[in-house]
Amino acid sequence: MSNRIGSYISFTLFGESHGAEIGVLADGLPAGIPVDEDFIKKQLSRRRPVGAISTARVESDEYRIVSGVFGGYTTGAPLCLLIPNSNTDSKSYEGLTHHPRPGHADYTALVKYGGYSDYRGGGHFSGRLTAALTAMGALMQSALKAKGVEIGAHISTIGDIKDKSFTPSAEEFALSAQDFPVIDKAVGEKMKAYIAEAAAEGDSVGGIVELAVTGVPAGVGEPWFDGVENALARAMFGIPAVKGIEFGAGFDFARLKGSTANDLLQKEQGRVVTKTNNNGGINGGISNGMPVIYRLAIKPTPSIYKEQNTLNLKADTVAPLQIHGRHDPAIIHRAVPVTEAVSALVFADLLAQQYGRAWLVPVKEEK
Amino acid sequence: MSNRIGSYISFTLFGESHGAEIGVLADGLPAGIPVDEDFIKKQLSRRRPVGAISTARVESDEYRIVSGVFGGYTTGAPLCLLIPNSNTDSKSYEGLTHHPRPGHADYTALVKYGGYSDYRGGGHFSGRLTAALTAMGALMQSALKAKGVEIGAHISTIGDIKDKSFTPSAEEFALSAQDFPVIDKAVGEKMKAYIAEAAAEGDSVGGIVELAVTGVPAGVGEPWFDGVENALARAMFGIPAVKGIEFGAGFDFARLKGSTANDLLQKEQGRVVTKTNNNGGINGGISNGMPVIYRLAIKPTPSIYKEQNTLNLKADTVAPLQIHGRHDPAIIHRAVPVTEAVSALVFADLLAQQYGRAWLVPVKEEK
Amino acid sequence: MSNRIGSYISFTLFGESHGAEIGVLADGLPAGIPVDEDFIKKQLSRRRPVGAISTARVESDEYRIVSGVFGGYTTGAPLCLLIPNSNTDSKSYEGLTHHPRPGHADYTALVKYGGYSDYRGGGHFSGRLTAALTAMGALMQSALKAKGVEIGAHISTIGDIKDKSFTPSAEEFALSAQDFPVIDKAVGEKMKAYIAEAAAEGDSVGGIVELAVTGVPAGVGEPWFDGVENALARAMFGIPAVKGIEFGAGFDFARLKGSTANDLLQKEQGRVVTKTNNNGGINGGISNGMPVIYRLAIKPTPSIYKEQNTLNLKADTVAPLQIHGRHDPAIIHRAVPVTEAVSALVFADLLAQQYGRAWLVPVKEEK
Amino acid sequence: MSNRIGSYISFTLFGESHGAEIGVLADGLPAGIPVDEDFIKKQLSRRRPVGAISTARVESDEYRIVSGVFGGYTTGAPLCLLIPNSNTDSKSYEGLTHHPRPGHADYTALVKYGGYSDYRGGGHFSGRLTAALTAMGALMQSALKAKGVEIGAHISTIGDIKDKSFTPSAEEFALSAQDFPVIDKAVGEKMKAYIAEAAAEGDSVGGIVELAVTGVPAGVGEPWFDGVENALARAMFGIPAVKGIEFGAGFDFARLKGSTANDLLQKEQGRVVTKTNNNGGINGGISNGMPVIYRLAIKPTPSIYKEQNTLNLKADTVAPLQIHGRHDPAIIHRAVPVTEAVSALVFADLLAQQYGRAWLVPVKEEK
Repeated sequence: MSNRIGSYISFTLFGESHGAEIGVLADGLPAGIPVDEDFIKKQLSRRRPVGAISTARVESDEYRIVSGVFGGYTTGAPLCLLIPNSNTDSKSYEGLTHHPRPGHADYTALVKYGGYSDYRGGGHFSGRLTAALTAMGALMQSALKAKGVEIGAHISTIGDIKDKSFTPSAEEFALSAQDFPVIDKAVGEKMKAYIAEAAAEGDSVGGIVELAVTGVPAGVGEPWFDGVENALARAMFGIPAVKGIEFGAGFDFARLKGSTANDLLQKEQGRVVTKTNNNGGINGGISNGMPVIYRLAIKPTPSIYKEQNTLNLKADTVAPLQIHGRHDPAIIHRAVPVTEAVSALVFADLLAQQYGRAWLVPVKEEK
Repeated sequence: MSNRIGSYISFTLFGESHGAEIGVLADGLPAGIPVDEDFIKKQLSRRRPVGAISTARVESDEYRIVSGVFGGYTTGAPLCLLIPNSNTDSKSYEGLTHHPRPGHADYTALVKYGGYSDYRGGGHFSGRLTAALTAMGALMQSALKAKGVEIGAHISTIGDIKDKSFTPSAEEFALSAQDFPVIDKAVGEKMKAYIAEAAAEGDSVGGIVELAVTGVPAGVGEPWFDGVENALARAMFGIPAVKGIEFGAGFDFARLKGSTANDLLQKEQGRVVTKTNNNGGINGGISNGMPVIYRLAIKPTPSIYKEQNTLNLKADTVAPLQIHGRHDPAIIHRAVPVTEAVSALVFADLLAQQYGRAWLVPVKEEK
Repeated sequence: MSNRIGSYISFTLFGESHGAEIGVLADGLPAGIPVDEDFIKKQLSRRRPVGAISTARVESDEYRIVSGVFGGYTTGAPLCLLIPNSNTDSKSYEGLTHHPRPGHADYTALVKYGGYSDYRGGGHFSGRLTAALTAMGALMQSALKAKGVEIGAHISTIGDIKDKSFTPSAEEFALSAQDFPVIDKAVGEKMKAYIAEAAAEGDSVGGIVELAVTGVPAGVGEPWFDGVENALARAMFGIPAVKGIEFGAGFDFARLKGSTANDLLQKEQGRVVTKTNNNGGINGGISNGMPVIYRLAIKPTPSIYKEQNTLNLKADTVAPLQIHGRHDPAIIHRAVPVTEAVSALVFADLLAQQYGRAWLVPVKEEK
Repeated sequence: MSNRIGSYISFTLFGESHGAEIGVLADGLPAGIPVDEDFIKKQLSRRRPVGAISTARVESDEYRIVSGVFGGYTTGAPLCLLIPNSNTDSKSYEGLTHHPRPGHADYTALVKYGGYSDYRGGGHFSGRLTAALTAMGALMQSALKAKGVEIGAHISTIGDIKDKSFTPSAEEFALSAQDFPVIDKAVGEKMKAYIAEAAAEGDSVGGIVELAVTGVPAGVGEPWFDGVENALARAMFGIPAVKGIEFGAGFDFARLKGSTANDLLQKEQGRVVTKTNNNGGINGGISNGMPVIYRLAIKPTPSIYKEQNTLNLKADTVAPLQIHGRHDPAIIHRAVPVTEAVSALVFADLLAQQYGRAWLVPVKEEK
């Protein structure tokens, strides 16, 4: 189904930007996973807009889990997580049904849903829904961490400004786990300045996010079509603004030859490893035990203050459009915890497929 | 399930390189689609190795449809398409279980399947299986064409050699529908020379494939997770050697600002179109009526004649590996019809989701 | 996934008896279905316990739709319907984890979920969750009715007391659409007396529910495993206490011969009909245009006031169990609207599979 | 999808009665299950028509496994099992497209597939396809047996003649594992005489099959909609002629009161058991460790030699129909191994859901 990912453990996203609540429903979770409320709050806070380079919408993100958790642990029944919407201001969206915002889903939703979709604030297409993904993802991210699987992400590129690449090391993971997630702080300052400049022009910027997942044992992923790459790619393109994904050397493979592209196997401290990691930890869709490395292309936020000359459907003519309301000059830093979250949902499912769902449960504490 | 794509119309791939038969099973096809045998044969022939830049394996690709077709039309029952394997030579693979080929799935399959997988010729991971995808895809490609949806693909890049980009035009589609699919023949000759050079060194090359799908009406794709990008990405990463996918401007979005990235809407001959196509025909996961444009990163064929120093599991030490048998210095030209085929499978399903499966059936001829 | 039914339109059930909220999440609904709030309320009221033959739990069933509906119509985005729990009294369930109630899921849930499940009020297994199914089903039932598909149900048998069978006629449907749903009121009174008698003994009764669905066009159902019988059967066994289902002549077929069992085809007012309806409107899993007729075996409510000698897991010995709290001597009359609701969910999906999801949308009113 | 059962391990059925081949494709099987060829052959032989009470069609059932098995063990890749059709005689079906056989899917298939379906020998709806289910089911049945899960089935009723019920005991299982599967041989002889009598009249008979599955641990089944009852019911209604299913006391629950219906828990040799087994081994959709008991209503074979007055669509009038060709006066004895097979497919999937797929693999032998 369209709003769902996962085979063994499925996650379905629902809600609209200005509707009553948004949420994610998880089905297939094993009983006994502890719910790490602090980490959920932390990740929600990282996703929340702050400071000069973000929208002015104040989002409190008070999530509630209304089913599937009892006494702090998952029960094995479906887990429904809800976040009420508040601080919504629907007025500024009123004209947009007939004057679709370029780069947004306004026009395509209009055609697809025949005028019935909730257009306020982007409705079901709003980045707002990623708050629910972030909360549910954080819950799984904690569970994975308890099993040795860690997920890190940072802004790798904005414009022509490039951060260091993940090795990845624990230190890099720690550095990237901040509100503006970069490994090199100085680079981060340059990026912020670049964003501020675009903001001053009423414009917006895109960029590249790099992720690394460590601790995934060799053997995870279900070829041909539910391999690690397939599953991650399918899920990641659900995140608004993602327009590309590459694993390991990715598009640079075009320039490589087999003799340099191939990752030679060797042994290190009793473990089979590869000398290089051009394949990003994946062969034939299956993890090989090396860090899983991937990068996402993020397009510039389509909502800009600059006037745009674009079709007015009612007037049936091109006319200047000025988008009011609150919008970010960059969403890439806020997207980072979302990409971590969605990665966690994907790996939770893939690990369950390989080892059974019970694998995700930490050793049971005495009750 | 792992070997299946499609929600309304599903396609499951099966078989091994040196097993008895490979095939695809389609479930959910509407009754009344004519089977275009000539086009199936043509696409199989394009995928088949030929000439100096390909493997010496002679593949006859004599496919049979054993169910779901009656009197030349689909019946509505599951369609099973089979291709027998022949000309297999399993001897050269005998040592590979303990000396895994770098860049291949040998090691990951060994870990995942505990020694039970069919290792001969890459087994279930072999590019050989793409013959079955190509045949089934060709069947759907004809059906889509009859409904105005056309799929084109060409080699966009090998090394630093770049072909023209798709506009796309009918002329470009015609030019690319050849054995070595490029728009600019001169560029194609340079690419062949580059491949031949790598072959002479016992090496292999990677590249980029660009696809365009025209005639997709606005409104196709099921957000958040079965949108056009999600579905294509998931399927494409099933094709061996694909390590990246980008839509429209893709990774170049990192350098763009919103004001230039946004595709302004306008009207042309009564149709809503966009002035630019940076979004590759997709907004919010839904087609906007413009050509759907995407590119795939293809890694160099991992099987090379050059000796590689890599772990021998039995000897528990790094040792030189010389891969015998037949292998291609480049598979990118052979991958092109496969990418077309898999695109056809994906769009058949997405169109069925939007308009019902019966939409794929051409106006019924009098019987 | 375990808590979900439906292929094209899926419905996932969640919640626990004494948790915060219960609900159903629908994915794949077409845009433009009007929400008939009055019918939802009516069906919830029919399911609610009333009078001497029901539990004393006061359920207000204040449902909310928090997503997927805008301006009174479905939007095409996932529809999440919630019902808060209130008037819960968890005290009486405290001892039950180690003294499982016979006939309930207490013991099996304990084994399956390792002690993590929410045991209060039956938790996720509680009949309470059928309120959410009833509300979502009512929404679909109205949509189906607008397309000419009507669903009726009544108590066909309790003990040895039998109601008339469905012909079915509109009059019978009207008679059965009441709080104690029978066609013959006099029979209904006998049934009530029988239930009251059991209640006086601290016991409970079972029975048989008969359903009829009219207006289903010939051609609906997806053999072999998503035919009308498969889909209804799978869904109906989700309703607590259902232990059997039969279509048309059902188990009486054992006594029939082919010559009397076969339904001869004939024509009536230009329509193909069958002379008898032993097949319950279904051949080969596909509707034949006749009313779809099926019956459900409902076991007696396992919660009874009578003392039962059953294993106490803590004491590791058989010991008398007295179940406190609120429970019904019969749930069959309350189950009737639930069986209608679940039937509506199933037929909505099957009709969407045959005609596309848009078929469920009534002719659009001018906006 | 319509022709598929199973969540973790899926089985898709394909083929037509007079097409080239029929088969089942399994996806999601773990690597390392041994293939018990003898048992597959035995079950195919039991399903094959023999003697006076069966059709004269000679079916050789030479199955081939063309993928997913290597060296006698499953590989973890999709397993495609094929059975070629032979001894087909399509002539006798020629008139049936316009003179549909009552009780068959002829008319419903005509409406659904618009004249494109393969009508020969019942096409995709033919009982012939159960040969493929039987072969694949036998493969899983052996695997389950190796894990202590055994499946038995016998004819419980034909007309008014009743066999003993399953206790079940190993002795009963052995008695029922024959070509005409009954526990009481004398009863079997009466049944055969009854069938022969019907055959002499050009008529056919129905009956009831009873199944028992032992060795299923407590905790298997995924409520609400993939519980043991849901999954079995959905699958069983795929078997042609099945029109009802009941678990444990089933429809007799209508006459029981809670105090007698409830299965009291007790302990026997350290195991939790129930005193009675009215719930057929299932509570809340989850196995409780007792034998799983269910019964299937089988309608009389609709193909009879007796003339039937039924609509001729071409002539647009009721006209006598004489069905030529080969048909059975009873299929119930041949249905028994099919019901075992389909049960095996269902339990394989349910056990994989609970314990992971690897659970199905016996302790690995030294290689």
